[in-house]
Amino acid sequence: MRGFVSFVSSGPGDPELLTLKAVERLGKADVVLYDDLASGAILDRARKGATLVSVGKRAGRPSARQEHVNRLLVDYALTGAAVVRLKSGDAGVFGRLEEECDALRTAEIGYEIIPGVTSACAAAAISLIPLTRRHTARRLQFITGADVKGELPDDLNFAALADPYAVTAVYMGKRTFPQLAARLIAQGLSGETPALLAESVGHDDQRLVRTTVAKLAEQLAQESVTATAMILYGALADETP
Amino acid sequence: MRGFVSFVSSGPGDPELLTLKAVERLGKADVVLYDDLASGAILDRARKGATLVSVGKRAGRPSARQEHVNRLLVDYALTGAAVVRLKSGDAGVFGRLEEECDALRTAEIGYEIIPGVTSACAAAAISLIPLTRRHTARRLQFITGADVKGELPDDLNFAALADPYAVTAVYMGKRTFPQLAARLIAQGLSGETPALLAESVGHDDQRLVRTTVAKLAEQLAQESVTATAMILYGALADETP
Repeated sequence: MRGFVSFVSSGPGDPELLTLKAVERLGKADVVLYDDLASGAILDRARKGATLVSVGKRAGRPSARQEHVNRLLVDYALTGAAVVRLKSGDAGVFGRLEEECDALRTAEIGYEIIPGVTSACAAAAISLIPLTRRHTARRLQFITGADVKGELPDDLNFAALADPYAVTAVYMGKRTFPQLAARLIAQGLSGETPALLAESVGHDDQRLVRTTVAKLAEQLAQESVTATAMILYGALADETP
Repeated sequence: MRGFVSFVSSGPGDPELLTLKAVERLGKADVVLYDDLASGAILDRARKGATLVSVGKRAGRPSARQEHVNRLLVDYALTGAAVVRLKSGDAGVFGRLEEECDALRTAEIGYEIIPGVTSACAAAAISLIPLTRRHTARRLQFITGADVKGELPDDLNFAALADPYAVTAVYMGKRTFPQLAARLIAQGLSGETPALLAESVGHDDQRLVRTTVAKLAEQLAQESVTATAMILYGALADETP
């Protein structure tokens, strides 16, 4: 009998932001394959006796060998196991989910996707910032600041990203933000555009910095990258209560 | 003693997609103000004895009087109650959250925002579609298809929306999609671009239609709008297992 793979979104890190469905799937898992970003207290929800396997994706580093993750997924499922593939944030957003799904389809293994709280929504909520606003923040967009080599992707639509009537969330973009900011400013975005850096949201070392695009670029050019961060910029009003 | 307002994201409708934190806040609420979109089994999670107040926002209709909702929020909080304002999807995405926050700040009432599963992530997951893909779906963007009068907003960035290397999620956009599609095609987007209509995700009458931008526009021009729908279009690969 073939197994089955549940892609389970772990949310931004706070175990209280798991969905009930995610908790249920973790509680029945035979095997849990997890990224380092989706670990800690969240893994305590896994069934006692489940095999827990780190597949080692980490912030600020090039991705782990994706082929190795794909192989592990298929191999565990072929033992007949109930496999949970725990992915940080929402599984469908910048997690190379498509490559893992492709591997399962090729091996004729069934799967499901359990959606979750994506990191942009979590960073905005903890900062009390609505991601959209009538008239001023009409469009919400998500990009990744890191390609597979950890560099700023050069095929981004910089005109769309420089729109002052959008809010943009940059995933995995801390290291490359100085370059991105330069491209945005060259496209006409004001350096004074509001920006938020949200580090380690929901963890003990959480840090929230409200600043501007130009100042954040300057700050990050001098900082070594350690924690996971979400950057928001654009039509963010100051919502401090 | 002043009360406190928790903006709680209810997710797309399936009560199993509530977060643990949302369930906890509902279980301690004195008052729950809810939209019709965030009701049903989700309200069963409210504390027995809590006052449940419908504020009547519905799909396919102009928004309820926002000022009335703001007033209710403030008035209930001023009684000292623990108020939950239950908002469908993620509270920060196209829910006029900013207006409710503004009203609370003016009245000097404290609040928090509990993020949740936004409808685009839920629609994609149930359809087994990753929202991003390396190289082809580099940017994910969310817009609303309905302004306060229920019309297509005329101040959208149609160039950004016609980018074939993005995936676009259109919230509340079923009625106006024929107009939006015409604008996109005029901007150069191919009518053959893949599209998905996801209706009533997580409810008994769920309906998923995979089609193209041109065909969906044609279909929706002939259909009366009843159920809540999410539309995705753009760089969606066919991921059927």
